Amino acid sequence: MEPGITIGELGEFGLIAAITASMAAAAGEVGGNLILGPGDDAAVVAAPDGRVVATTDMLIEDRHFRLEWSSAADIGHKAAARNLADVAAMGAVPTALLVCFAGPGHLPVEWVSELAAGIAGECAEAGAAVAGGDTSSAGTVLIAITALGSLGDRRPVTRSGARPGDVVAVTGTLGSAAAGLDLLTAAVHPPGTADLLAGHRRPKPPYRAGPQAAELGATSLIDVSDGLIADLGHVAAASGVRIELDTKPLAAEPIARVGALRRAADALRRPDWLRWVLTGGDDHALVATFPPEVRLPPSWTTIGTVADGRGIAVDGQTWNDQGGWEHFRSS
Amino acid sequence: MEPGITIGELGEFGLIAAITASMAAAAGEVGGNLILGPGDDAAVVAAPDGRVVATTDMLIEDRHFRLEWSSAADIGHKAAARNLADVAAMGAVPTALLVCFAGPGHLPVEWVSELAAGIAGECAEAGAAVAGGDTSSAGTVLIAITALGSLGDRRPVTRSGARPGDVVAVTGTLGSAAAGLDLLTAAVHPPGTADLLAGHRRPKPPYRAGPQAAELGATSLIDVSDGLIADLGHVAAASGVRIELDTKPLAAEPIARVGALRRAADALRRPDWLRWVLTGGDDHALVATFPPEVRLPPSWTTIGTVADGRGIAVDGQTWNDQGGWEHFRSS
Repeated sequence: MEPGITIGELGEFGLIAAITASMAAAAGEVGGNLILGPGDDAAVVAAPDGRVVATTDMLIEDRHFRLEWSSAADIGHKAAARNLADVAAMGAVPTALLVCFAGPGHLPVEWVSELAAGIAGECAEAGAAVAGGDTSSAGTVLIAITALGSLGDRRPVTRSGARPGDVVAVTGTLGSAAAGLDLLTAAVHPPGTADLLAGHRRPKPPYRAGPQAAELGATSLIDVSDGLIADLGHVAAASGVRIELDTKPLAAEPIARVGALRRAADALRRPDWLRWVLTGGDDHALVATFPPEVRLPPSWTTIGTVADGRGIAVDGQTWNDQGGWEHFRSS
Repeated sequence: MEPGITIGELGEFGLIAAITASMAAAAGEVGGNLILGPGDDAAVVAAPDGRVVATTDMLIEDRHFRLEWSSAADIGHKAAARNLADVAAMGAVPTALLVCFAGPGHLPVEWVSELAAGIAGECAEAGAAVAGGDTSSAGTVLIAITALGSLGDRRPVTRSGARPGDVVAVTGTLGSAAAGLDLLTAAVHPPGTADLLAGHRRPKPPYRAGPQAAELGATSLIDVSDGLIADLGHVAAASGVRIELDTKPLAAEPIARVGALRRAADALRRPDWLRWVLTGGDDHALVATFPPEVRLPPSWTTIGTVADGRGIAVDGQTWNDQGGWEHFRSS
């Protein structure tokens, strides 16, 4: 293909061929769950235990990413990761992804191929295959993804099973994506903060920790996409319990990239870097509640306990702040 | 809820609640395949034979519909129908849908509720449930849907199994959606063409004919979304055969709404109304190939045969025209 050709010049069927080729090259050998792959009216995916976990989520240009801040490959990884993390957050193993892509005709084909390779590459990290998709033209770039997964005979771990006496534990990082986004927004790039920018551009959800939590007996499980307090707020509300958090382990490695967050806060003149850890979304750490007798592997850090009552407390104080963020609202 | 409130005023979580309520009211009792419904990180859907059929497709404002030409309910029905038809076109029964919705903050909540009710209503017609979704803000309305389905121990019917000697048969209507769109585009509304406008706004795919075709022994199956000749072109290419069409049954009821198409052609001064039937997309008729010994029920109309060779012939002439349409291309 000539360099610099646009998707408008290539046309829809040519674009689909380019995307498929790019994904095949990036995916490697992860087709185990694909009974019938892309190219027909629909794909057929294995669902060995007679159930399929399914979730959908979209990324929109200038709302979830900016073309000047993230590479096409970054955006592909991020779009896939958000969905794969939701599958893991049920205690399931991702099996397949379906991708809708729309963008303006002047986009280079190369850009879309890199996006597709990013999606397929993230899929491969989680053990899933790209099963199908759709393309269209649109004024801005948007990516809508559906991820499927297999529970492997486990029960799904929902948000509603936390019980008083359980411990709360997290695996993955918190605050990096939000701090990275604030640095990009302010166009401030102090040394030693590359991990935060990477956290925004290409989050690293701990996929295997989802099924692990289920096997350890987690009573509830969620991935941190809106922010730790907002997402645990969903768990507290669905379970009818109060969740009491301790900031000491949250303000330390491995959960918080402490040095980088301090440097970012200094550069941005923010008084409180811990706020990113408590309320920043998009890192896709997994947070679970476990019965107190469960022995957690060292990859999980205990950050609080479940009590009778409602809402979230931080270091003994009820949290009344707006913990996460919503689309549409302008406030 | 106050009348006239916008989705920007309501906020994301309020909008999700409104959508969920609207869908629940429209859906009725179709939750049989939902093991775990909306409200968690992911849904869990039954896949009784250990496989799940999955397809995804999107609709974008001013590309696939116009807000001044279609009601919110129409758009919801159409968005769902496109995906449910793709499931049927594998020989499967739709089980569940996942919906991504994005739109501008100034949209009335009522509009989005009607869209959601349209999606859920179409789902109910096909026997499927809405399992989950995602909302975001965007400059224009877009709807990306994934449909899941169950093959019920049947093999999937792909595009690649047509064999020389097979007959080609269709069920559903052809040409209505394309003619309706041309009437709307020209702002010409002759009497007696309401079926064509309805065909564009709210296509009626014959969902149950998909599993029926599989049970009858169809060797290939596809839904007509790009146009009959374009879609049979995919079948011919995938199967390595030539497909020979006879326009006589195509130019008659029940496939073509003959009277309405004639009136539309007269009003638009088009010389050839059959062109809509041969090349118009978006009606989502189902077209299949069957071994010649299969006795077809009267709902299927034989329109041609499969031969050795390649490409499509119409009344004995090889079709060299551009049979369907692609996104992105400006030609």
